[in-house]
This record gives sequence, C-alpha cells and structure tokens, in this order.
Amino acid sequence: MAIAVNQDRIRRAQELMINQGLAALMIMNHDDHRYFFGDTRVQPRAIIPVVGHPIFICFAAEEPELRQELGDEGVKVLTNVGEQIFSVRDTFHRLFKAPPPGISLPAGGKLRVGMQMWFATPAFLVDLFRKVNFEVELVSSDPVMDELRMTKEPQEIELMRKAQSIAAVGMNRARELLRPGATGQEIATEVLYAMMKAGAEGTSTPIHVNSGIRSCWTHGRIDRCALNEGDLVVIDLTPEFDGYCGNLARTFVLGRPDEVQGRLLDTYREICEVTRQHLRPGITVAELDALGLEICTRRGLAEHHLNGISHGIGLRFEETPASTIIPQHRKVALRENMTVTIGHTVLAIPGVGGVRFEDVYLVTPDGGPALHPYPMDSAVG
Amino acid sequence: MAIAVNQDRIRRAQELMINQGLAALMIMNHDDHRYFFGDTRVQPRAIIPVVGHPIFICFAAEEPELRQELGDEGVKVLTNVGEQIFSVRDTFHRLFKAPPPGISLPAGGKLRVGMQMWFATPAFLVDLFRKVNFEVELVSSDPVMDELRMTKEPQEIELMRKAQSIAAVGMNRARELLRPGATGQEIATEVLYAMMKAGAEGTSTPIHVNSGIRSCWTHGRIDRCALNEGDLVVIDLTPEFDGYCGNLARTFVLGRPDEVQGRLLDTYREICEVTRQHLRPGITVAELDALGLEICTRRGLAEHHLNGISHGIGLRFEETPASTIIPQHRKVALRENMTVTIGHTVLAIPGVGGVRFEDVYLVTPDGGPALHPYPMDSAVG
Repeated sequence: MAIAVNQDRIRRAQELMINQGLAALMIMNHDDHRYFFGDTRVQPRAIIPVVGHPIFICFAAEEPELRQELGDEGVKVLTNVGEQIFSVRDTFHRLFKAPPPGISLPAGGKLRVGMQMWFATPAFLVDLFRKVNFEVELVSSDPVMDELRMTKEPQEIELMRKAQSIAAVGMNRARELLRPGATGQEIATEVLYAMMKAGAEGTSTPIHVNSGIRSCWTHGRIDRCALNEGDLVVIDLTPEFDGYCGNLARTFVLGRPDEVQGRLLDTYREICEVTRQHLRPGITVAELDALGLEICTRRGLAEHHLNGISHGIGLRFEETPASTIIPQHRKVALRENMTVTIGHTVLAIPGVGGVRFEDVYLVTPDGGPALHPYPMDSAVG
Repeated sequence: MAIAVNQDRIRRAQELMINQGLAALMIMNHDDHRYFFGDTRVQPRAIIPVVGHPIFICFAAEEPELRQELGDEGVKVLTNVGEQIFSVRDTFHRLFKAPPPGISLPAGGKLRVGMQMWFATPAFLVDLFRKVNFEVELVSSDPVMDELRMTKEPQEIELMRKAQSIAAVGMNRARELLRPGATGQEIATEVLYAMMKAGAEGTSTPIHVNSGIRSCWTHGRIDRCALNEGDLVVIDLTPEFDGYCGNLARTFVLGRPDEVQGRLLDTYREICEVTRQHLRPGITVAELDALGLEICTRRGLAEHHLNGISHGIGLRFEETPASTIIPQHRKVALRENMTVTIGHTVLAIPGVGGVRFEDVYLVTPDGGPALHPYPMDSAVG
C-alpha cells in the first residue's frame, strides 16, 4: 500500500478538465485520493491543476514519509492541523495568478475548481472552502471523475472480485451462526472477524442483521435483539479490500418459509435474475426498475415495489448511477465494464417482513455475471 | 435499544429554540436522533417544531415497526427511498403556514430551521434541502444542541465509561500482539474482535496502528506493513457503545526506547498529567495548549508542539470544543460534567517518530479524572 501516483489517470483527468473548463481538481476524499495516488492518508488534501504536477498539501510531521514515498514527483506544501484550508488557498493564489493554458476565464471572472460532493464531503468544509477561496468557483467534479471511474480497469475488477470473495467468507460464517436466540451483535462480531482475517480493512457500512419486523428496514444496523424462530433475517455485508467495496446481501428464514415469505423470496430471486440478464451497456436503472415492477405486478406485490434496484460501486460504496441519492441518475446509461449491484432495495410487506439478495455484477454485452457468484438459497445451518 | 423518546430533552430543546429564534430543528444525523429518540435508524429524518410533538419521516415499510415502538406519541409521515426530502418539504409547508407561537418572522421573511452541520452532514444534502425548502433559512443547530449536549447527564457518563472500558479491553489485546513482524492489519483484526465481544457496536474511526516513520501521522489507518524492532507504535482505539464514543491511544516501543523516543514519551506523559490537572470549568483549549507548549519548550521540543490537545466527545466522536475543526472553539470555556479527551495531537519529530496518549476525562472543579484510567507505560508483551 505504498504511494503509487497513477500518471495515466492524472493525464486523462487533465484532458477531461479542459473539456469541462476546470482549472483544477481539489481532492479531499479518500476514494479519489486513492484512485490517483494509491495512498490511504486520512484527511487527504491534493490539487491536480489542469496542467502540471499534482500538489500534495500534507501535515509537516508527515513530510519525510511523503518525500520517501514520492521522491521528487509530487510537489508538497506543508501545513498543520487546522491550517490545511489556508494552505489550499495560498496554493490556488500561487497557481492561478493567470488562467492556466487551455482555460479561459468565464464571464463571471472566476476560475472553476471541481470537487467531489457526495456523502463524504461535509457541508461545513464546502462552506469554509468557498469562504476562504472566494476567487474560485467550486463545482462538482462528477463530470470528470465519473468519466474516469464509472468504467473499471481490469486490475480494479480483480480487486472488486477479491472484496466480493471476502463478503462470501463472511456470509458463510453468518449461515453457521444463524439460529433462534442468537443476537445481531454476536453474528456481526464473528462475521466481521472472519472478513478481516480474510483481508478486509473494515466495512463501508455497519453490518446489517435485520430480523423479524426489522427485516422491512430500508437500511440496517447491528442490534442486540435475539432472532426468533420463523424470522426472516436480512444480512448485508460490505467489506473493503484495498479501498474497493464489496456488497453481498442474503435473506434467510429461521425455519420453513411460510407462503408469504416464500413468495417474497421467490419474487426477489426472479427480479435479480431478470435484471442480471438485462445488465447490458445502454440500459438505465429506470429501465431495470420497470422489469422489477412487472415481476412484482405479476406476483401481486406491485404496491410494495421500490425503485432503485441497482447502483454503481467501486472505491466508493455508492457511485454513479446512484438513483436513490441523485434522482437524475435513473437516466444514466450503463457502460461495459461498470460494476454495479443488483438488490439495493428491500421488497417488504410492512409489518410482515422484507427480503433482499444483493450482489455485485459486471456490465457486459451479454448481461451481468456476478463478480463472485454466491448461492441464492435461504436455508441456514 | 428500543425507541425511547426523551421528552425532557425535547422540552429543553424547544426552550432553547425560542431563545435562538428557531422555528424547528431538522434532525438527519444519527447522534441527534439517538439523543432525542433513543433510536438507531439509518438515514433518520425527524422534525422537532418549537411547539408540539416531533414528527418522524419514515420509510413506508417501517411504519408498523415505528408505530409498535412509538404508539401514538410521535407523528409519522410516510415516505419512500429518494423521496424523503419532498416529505420534509411538505411537512414544513403544513407546519408553518403561519409562524409558530413565540417565533416572529425575521426581516428577510424566512423562518429559521436549525440542522447539525458537522462531518456527517454532506454538502449535497444541504444544497438539496435549501433548494427544496426555499421558504425556510437553514442554519447550524449548534447553539441549541451544544447547550444540551456539551454537559453530560449521569447516565451518559456511565455509557462513556463503558465505552472507555471496552477500549481498555482492546488495548490489552494489542499489547499481547505487538512484536516485530506483526502487521497492523493482524493487530487491528484481533483488537476489533475483542472490543466487539466486549460489546462495542464498531468504532468511530478505523483502528490506527501507526508504526515507525508513520507514527508521525496526524491520523492513521489499518495497514499491512510489518512492525520493526525499535519502532514507536501509536495505537488509537475508538469503540462505540450504545452510540457513545470511547477514545484510547497509547504509544509503545518495540524494544528499549532510545534517548529521543524516551524524551517524546516522557514529554507527552507530562503534558497529559498537567493538562488533566487543569481540566476545570472555565478553562479553554487555547489555555490548555499553552500549558503543553510550555512543557515542550522546557524540554527542547517547542517547534514540534501542535495546538488542539483536547476535544469534546460523546454521541459524536468530536463535539464542541473541536478546535482542530472549528478554530473559534479554541475559546470555548469548558463546563463541569463535560467529557473531553486529552491527547488529540501527535508530538512528532518528522522522520523520527511520534507519540500520543489519549484518554477521555470528566471536567470537574478538581481537574479531570480519567473516565477509565489505563496504564501510561509503553512496554509491550
């Protein structure tokens, strides 16, 4: 996990920045930082100008380590805790005394800087950035980063496959432990341990063990409630490996499924299989959701169908398209070699129970093979 | 962990809202949601109006579970994935056809709504909220929430103590495993397992195992590098229990400390002890930092001293005062029964090594006792 600056990705980003009229990318999130620099620093700060070398804004105490890793490749600016934002400002001042080559100053007179604006970008930091760097206009970096990151490179697909294989290790462990009387906390403890021993750095989200009435939950949590005979149990695992996110959800039944449980489980499996077959370049999440709605309608579950069956996944747990976060993403056409999940939304009858089966698939002209196929049955033990 | 609406806290919040001229609090983070409602729902959405009952905006599939937990106490609004923000908007429309009692419409003509704006509040959500709810002015809820949450209630202090005792379990496990050749990943795996078996739901931050040159890091990560003989190793543990955050950091030496390592370790221990003695109502982080600087100066380490020795901690990992996030917090006077850490900043000689000893303390008129004292030595095995 040494720093490895990816010059090819930086070059492609700079080409896209010219197209988008961006003078620079401001990197202050883990996933973009890892994507460009192979580095896992906490609170990363780096600037990629449209022309020239990236600039690392690092804590003074970290300089020798960064210099040892980077040699003279990267330009460094030293800073201290709480002063990073001012070092960023001073760097922009220095960089953009004049507009960089290829970028013309827009009408408003401000150079545009792109930054990621997802869950990991807190509002107060954006406010602070805008206040301190009033000479630049801050915009979303998605038009650049999506072009780069939506389609995965072969080595990225291998890391995604590894993350998914770790999730399978965790799910196997969960199956061994599921029984009436076990608690979500106990199961999550053992499952996380198994996944970390298999190489996971941690998980993107807390491990979900949603049982009984809580199987209807849209999201999940680790809780201390005991599982009961007859419960539906939704388990959702999100291990990370070298920053890449796995995502595997399965629904189990503690006993023989009753008629309603069986219908929910069969319906969801059919949704997954049909959606998977249609996971081809050009299709949108809206179109995939229409397939699911048709299946639910045929099976008398239309009123419980939810939109948002699929989302992109990679170095970030949810990437474009992420239609349950950004409604416009429902219309984004999938591309070959994207990695997406199927199984994002719960199919639940309120008060009765809910089910989900989620895997990560590769988008190909022949539909989506699962990156690491895992059994779809619901038996435990 | 059933839902338990805390009417006393809601009443006190409503009083503070009148003082601050806020028509409502918009809750969409875990910690405030847990503070008021004892609930651990993911993606919580609730509105506390200045007068009247709180309103829960929940996913339709979760209604029966919420109704079972809340009875008729809470008003519920049903919504679907991706539609929460519109349900919020409609609720505000309905609530504020006229200004609520006690709140006069300010000059600009917009009612003010308070919301938490820390790390867990993403910029895109704030932007979306402002766009959709253009009839209200969104402001930070800190003036209300800090008044409530800075000072901890007795049962909160007990939960903090429990979290800290879990951290001690993890640190004991780390000491057993520290040896040349062990990797950070291996140690973190076993430590997290030990803490979760002791009741932790997870950790607020990744477990840090920063060794050798990386002991200088301001933050940390789990990595796969092997520890070496002679290394300084900084371990930072942040378990959560019932949402309350522990924080315990220790620095170990794999072998006999050399002169420089010994000086760093002794200096940090003195900083912790002196700071602890001064942890009394009325003192500020700026004043605590001055004590540390004086010690570093006397020991020839002034140039390596960093500001920000202490931060508030509770249901959020960093609470007011959080001077390395919000510079104005350097001047916030501490109050009796606040829980704060000492040991937030690393004392590092770049390229050589860094040290930290962090604990959670209670602010009292007699200085700060550690919530769960843990040995300050640096020997392993």
